[in-house]
Amino acid sequence: MAGDDKRQSVRRGVLLVISSPSGAGKTTLSRNLLEAEKNIAMSVSVTTRPRRQSEIEGSHYFFKSVPEFAFMRDSGQLLEWAEVHGNFYGTPRDAVMKALAQGQDVLFDIDVQGTHQLAAAMPEDVVRVFVLPPSIDEMRRRLKRRAEDDDATIIRRLRTAETELRHWDDYDYVIVNDDLDRAFSELRAILDAERLRRVRRPAIKRLVEQLQHDLAAVVAAN
Amino acid sequence: MAGDDKRQSVRRGVLLVISSPSGAGKTTLSRNLLEAEKNIAMSVSVTTRPRRQSEIEGSHYFFKSVPEFAFMRDSGQLLEWAEVHGNFYGTPRDAVMKALAQGQDVLFDIDVQGTHQLAAAMPEDVVRVFVLPPSIDEMRRRLKRRAEDDDATIIRRLRTAETELRHWDDYDYVIVNDDLDRAFSELRAILDAERLRRVRRPAIKRLVEQLQHDLAAVVAAN
Repeated sequence: MAGDDKRQSVRRGVLLVISSPSGAGKTTLSRNLLEAEKNIAMSVSVTTRPRRQSEIEGSHYFFKSVPEFAFMRDSGQLLEWAEVHGNFYGTPRDAVMKALAQGQDVLFDIDVQGTHQLAAAMPEDVVRVFVLPPSIDEMRRRLKRRAEDDDATIIRRLRTAETELRHWDDYDYVIVNDDLDRAFSELRAILDAERLRRVRRPAIKRLVEQLQHDLAAVVAAN
Repeated sequence: MAGDDKRQSVRRGVLLVISSPSGAGKTTLSRNLLEAEKNIAMSVSVTTRPRRQSEIEGSHYFFKSVPEFAFMRDSGQLLEWAEVHGNFYGTPRDAVMKALAQGQDVLFDIDVQGTHQLAAAMPEDVVRVFVLPPSIDEMRRRLKRRAEDDDATIIRRLRTAETELRHWDDYDYVIVNDDLDRAFSELRAILDAERLRRVRRPAIKRLVEQLQHDLAAVVAAN
């Protein structure tokens, strides 16, 4: 529906947060959404973690020193931030504000604490979707299918999942991912609907004013 | 998506209000929605207006005497009511509450005042969609195409449209009906998304509790 937006009216972007325990399918759903929808882009975080060889500055992360990160955080340049295993991560405010104003939607891959901060900072803009696995057995099967993860990593992911599950009721929408196609169409319906919210479409006010003006003229002439 | 709901979990129904000035396409959109979606039914109002020959009791309206209506209203049996051209109209509370609890969605054809009352009575359940015509010229063309309306009726509808347009910003979503197919797919996306809201899915709590229980067992065993 992205292409129609320009034709119809300028709107404010959606800040879409998809959270889930590992193995519930968040990564696949996010990737499919970015492929299918032209008008949504992944938020690029800043981090103090060392760059891996495969990672590209500005595409995977903006890599910063700890003092640079601290300056951004302390001067209000981050919408949310967290420390994970000794590294800092954060969402740059400027990029998000620019996307919002241009009617560009932004997809976030942030944890439950980050989501909480982001929603507090931008309550009218954030849409939170929680993806649940149909069962823990299915979740473990999916984690084990990922060849790269050893048993210790899987156990760590399961422990993290316990924390994440505790926060499911902070979210606006819930998708149970027992069928990827259905889960994906549900995700798209959520994004399509949120794009139609009145509060995101300031240009509608001008259309209504034009309609009122033209209607008054017709009524007066009859 | 209606068929999937039963498989997945019991949910609370959506009270869907579609409002628009005459000629914006509300009637066509409503009819198409009732045809396409099994899990939504039209709310049947009570009225004191005389029954027309073509109308069926309990299908088009529940026809009541003025004292019967007054009793229903005064004993809290109506979720909203209005007097229009000397006749009373209202929405029976019981039918709506029963539908909600059964996960059945309800579509309302009520005016802006009725919408206001309904949203005040059921704030968590009501979803309000305002349909706008792309232009007043197009709206007049559509009104004129309805062979049954004479010029005086069209002018009366245009005057009523002035009142209705004033309330557009009470609504949650706005659809600009410049293309019926697109407007209809937007309406369906809104309904699909609203069905996925966490607050409408109390059964999800039980799924999360089951996941937490199973996850704790797996973590404890490793």
